[in-house]
Amino acid sequence: MFAVTILGNNSAIPTPDRHPTAQVISYNDQLMLVDCGEGTQMQLTKYKVRRSKIRHIFISHLHGDHYFGLIGLINSMSLLGRTEPLSLYAPPELEEILRLQLQCAATTLKFNLSFHALLPDKTGVLFREKDMEVSYFPTKHRIPCYGFSFSAQRRKRRVIPEQARAYDIPAAYYSQLQNGADYEQKSGQLVKNDWVTLPPAPGKRYVYCADSIYDEDLLPHLEGADLVYHEATYLHALVQRAQDRFHSTAVQAATLAQKAAAKRLLIGHFSSKYTELQPFLDESIPVFPNTELALEGTTYLIQ
Amino acid sequence: MFAVTILGNNSAIPTPDRHPTAQVISYNDQLMLVDCGEGTQMQLTKYKVRRSKIRHIFISHLHGDHYFGLIGLINSMSLLGRTEPLSLYAPPELEEILRLQLQCAATTLKFNLSFHALLPDKTGVLFREKDMEVSYFPTKHRIPCYGFSFSAQRRKRRVIPEQARAYDIPAAYYSQLQNGADYEQKSGQLVKNDWVTLPPAPGKRYVYCADSIYDEDLLPHLEGADLVYHEATYLHALVQRAQDRFHSTAVQAATLAQKAAAKRLLIGHFSSKYTELQPFLDESIPVFPNTELALEGTTYLIQ
Repeated sequence: MFAVTILGNNSAIPTPDRHPTAQVISYNDQLMLVDCGEGTQMQLTKYKVRRSKIRHIFISHLHGDHYFGLIGLINSMSLLGRTEPLSLYAPPELEEILRLQLQCAATTLKFNLSFHALLPDKTGVLFREKDMEVSYFPTKHRIPCYGFSFSAQRRKRRVIPEQARAYDIPAAYYSQLQNGADYEQKSGQLVKNDWVTLPPAPGKRYVYCADSIYDEDLLPHLEGADLVYHEATYLHALVQRAQDRFHSTAVQAATLAQKAAAKRLLIGHFSSKYTELQPFLDESIPVFPNTELALEGTTYLIQ
Repeated sequence: MFAVTILGNNSAIPTPDRHPTAQVISYNDQLMLVDCGEGTQMQLTKYKVRRSKIRHIFISHLHGDHYFGLIGLINSMSLLGRTEPLSLYAPPELEEILRLQLQCAATTLKFNLSFHALLPDKTGVLFREKDMEVSYFPTKHRIPCYGFSFSAQRRKRRVIPEQARAYDIPAAYYSQLQNGADYEQKSGQLVKNDWVTLPPAPGKRYVYCADSIYDEDLLPHLEGADLVYHEATYLHALVQRAQDRFHSTAVQAATLAQKAAAKRLLIGHFSSKYTELQPFLDESIPVFPNTELALEGTTYLIQ
């Protein structure tokens, strides 16, 4: 399974029923956390996401609504006896903030926290692990800010059953064909793998655009993505405020998704001034029909 | 009114229905916040405490469950347009942590935040304002930690109506008598204030003991207090663990309250391992009958 679960969909100031930004990406048995606003550890508990399974955390930028919950989560992980290493990808200044906070509490983490600084002149792949590749790219915001792209590769070749049968390859051998093996017939003749298989199906990709002003420079990162998350802090009536604060409107998010030919769009980071979210959909769907609201506690399949 | 409202009653790791430590002291129209664990700003909203009315914040120590919510609260206050100054009393290292976090976000607070460092060699009165005096004292914990004493003075003398009537003083003059004025009769004879009034009633005092191992050195600070808050992280079965971690049990909190002849005791900071709180009362009431559980959202009058 490849999916994203929303833990917080609000911008700066929390409202009684909306929390600051945090999302969990699940891929097979692995969890990755993207941003970690205040209260994220409580949201993880509420939605029964197992903290212990999180191995990578990505922080897009150092506005508090995207990371004030991080130190609490890390602290709790240690108190709960975590020993598995944790990788953190974030703007470089965060390392010193965490170090200071741990030092003041005389806390030594019980696990290895490896810090990877996101630097503007060093975009690209953050890591590849099995079938998952995570990369990052800059967005345009008031302070340095990064989006993340999660790409689940398909490694298995697709067997063409008619062809395989034509060469008398037993079905028990198909899993080896999927892994690219050739087949030797009893007669000794070699059946080349690509005579009976097709290349792997295309991978699936989720792109998280963090906070950003409307910016067509993002298009190459979003192109053809299966699911794009883009902020929609304001409705169109406040497009000038969005511009001034380096945020976007629902219509702008939808426009980018449409131009990038993304398959689906998820919008979030709603300003606290809005109590109703339906107008965000009403404005974006005419531009990009396949838009959904990022709702807390909801899991969106990336497929 | 002089009262304390509990926003969080749990120790280190939040549970689904208990939050880390935070309390609001209300005295007349003024609010003061004591400790500020993660999620305090959400708890303030939930319990309809007006953030804008908070003018003083006290942080007992730099374990995260007592201050990780502070930067978020301060940030939100600024975003909401606060202009009134805010005083913060905390261990000195907190100033640099806040400074760094604000700097990384390129945030300039819209109000004046004045930082007052709590230092072990400089205990005593933090401020006096109208009838309220706040002082601090060290507790014994794993890192430097401080308790706070909130003392509401009564300034008005108590009129003795029979005496006042005997001197023909009109009731309309009583408020001046309360403020200490003498009265001149029509005959020109002076009635001294203390012939017709009694000194002000004794003040009321709330003492917050923060985190602490069982420590009889606290007794002078608790003596005769109208309400004492003392941590009770563990039940008696874990008294050794309490000792090892510089925490207390319910029985120990009750013992201190009893030895100090406090009037009432509030216990909190319960370990996440306990789902039921009644056993804390069951253990402390035999030692100090006037014990209550610190329950989130509940306001305790200090009277």
